[in-house]
Amino acid sequence: MSGTLFGIGVGPGDPELLTLKAARLLAAVPVIAWPAPLEGPGMARTIAAAAIPEGKTEIAIRMGFRPERDDTEAAYDAGAAAIAGHLEAGRDVAVLCEGDPLFFGSFIYLLARLAPRHPVEVVPGIASPMAAAALLRQPLATLDDSLAIIPATKAEAEIERLLAGCDGAVIMKVGRHLPKLRRVLSRLGLEAGAQVVERVGLDGQRLLPFAAADSLGYFSLVIVHRPKESHR
Amino acid sequence: MSGTLFGIGVGPGDPELLTLKAARLLAAVPVIAWPAPLEGPGMARTIAAAAIPEGKTEIAIRMGFRPERDDTEAAYDAGAAAIAGHLEAGRDVAVLCEGDPLFFGSFIYLLARLAPRHPVEVVPGIASPMAAAALLRQPLATLDDSLAIIPATKAEAEIERLLAGCDGAVIMKVGRHLPKLRRVLSRLGLEAGAQVVERVGLDGQRLLPFAAADSLGYFSLVIVHRPKESHR
Repeated sequence: MSGTLFGIGVGPGDPELLTLKAARLLAAVPVIAWPAPLEGPGMARTIAAAAIPEGKTEIAIRMGFRPERDDTEAAYDAGAAAIAGHLEAGRDVAVLCEGDPLFFGSFIYLLARLAPRHPVEVVPGIASPMAAAALLRQPLATLDDSLAIIPATKAEAEIERLLAGCDGAVIMKVGRHLPKLRRVLSRLGLEAGAQVVERVGLDGQRLLPFAAADSLGYFSLVIVHRPKESHR
Repeated sequence: MSGTLFGIGVGPGDPELLTLKAARLLAAVPVIAWPAPLEGPGMARTIAAAAIPEGKTEIAIRMGFRPERDDTEAAYDAGAAAIAGHLEAGRDVAVLCEGDPLFFGSFIYLLARLAPRHPVEVVPGIASPMAAAALLRQPLATLDDSLAIIPATKAEAEIERLLAGCDGAVIMKVGRHLPKLRRVLSRLGLEAGAQVVERVGLDGQRLLPFAAADSLGYFSLVIVHRPKESHR
């Protein structure tokens, strides 16, 4: 009988943002897998460290930070094969995922490979937009606000169209796309109220007004609000 | 010296989806406030029950489920005044909020009233879209997908415009707006792949294809994906 594959969101950075369910499962399962760069433990493993007792079997799924697509596929294939071996032997496997497993999460690629043949349970995690809003103490959405989640990797015209049509937005994975975003927010008159959160809950965390950002890493997001009446 | 106001997300239903930080703070603070209907403990208090030791001072902020706007304002005013009394006496107060406090959360109204005069810390919670996607084991967004969060309370034309422009969407607070959503999704050809999750993590939880939904409560959401290539 197959073990169960658990996709476990560990939140965006603060180890205390693990859920009680994530902590319970990490204590219980015999095998833990995690995506990681070519060396070192990787972000998800670092966030979850305090919740992982000694003596677990661990599987590192290693890939370059922005590898060629084929390398990524091969890394997920190999990771899925290693995980499948444990599942087929009846051992439960927990896969760590920073943030939430199904919200831009690497778990999605393992799910696609393993769900057809194994039982899967997903444990949601705190997503970075919610953690960033908490740090800023600013609402993401209220009442009948729409909220657009927009990867900064999209084309400039597409980002502009999405931003123009929503009540508020979170632009994810800013990094080298900052100049493009600056052009779009400036054209739409949304630069003034926009806030940046970089590396939420991680070493090097920064909160700053979008207008003051000069260089941002990949794990940065921008929260944009269209000016409107007070929430009071 | 003022106590601190903690806005604490308790997740959408499953008590195990509280974060470690929420559980630690609920054990530590002397005063806990929660929104509730006119009678009974309310959803957030019920979700957090196992994390609240006996002997806390508790403040119920009571309002009808869909009261007149003025009644709501008066209820938040009275709740904020009661909370402020404790903060001014130097006692920390935790406000419970189902889901995430700043994602359509009632905490936003207390934040607006209390943040100008008191220190505030927000603890993010698992939001219902992530919990619903976890139950469905379906991605919310991958790679450069945009994701639109759309309250079903919006006008039909606005919902149609937002849905037509995104890669995926979560339509929140469905309830009596189901017929409107059925018209929009049918016109856009998005009905077939859409999934409903009602009362995620709560008694009476249901997962069903949108096409099969006949009557849904307020705490229902629809996850919509535009057909595209496999994630593999």
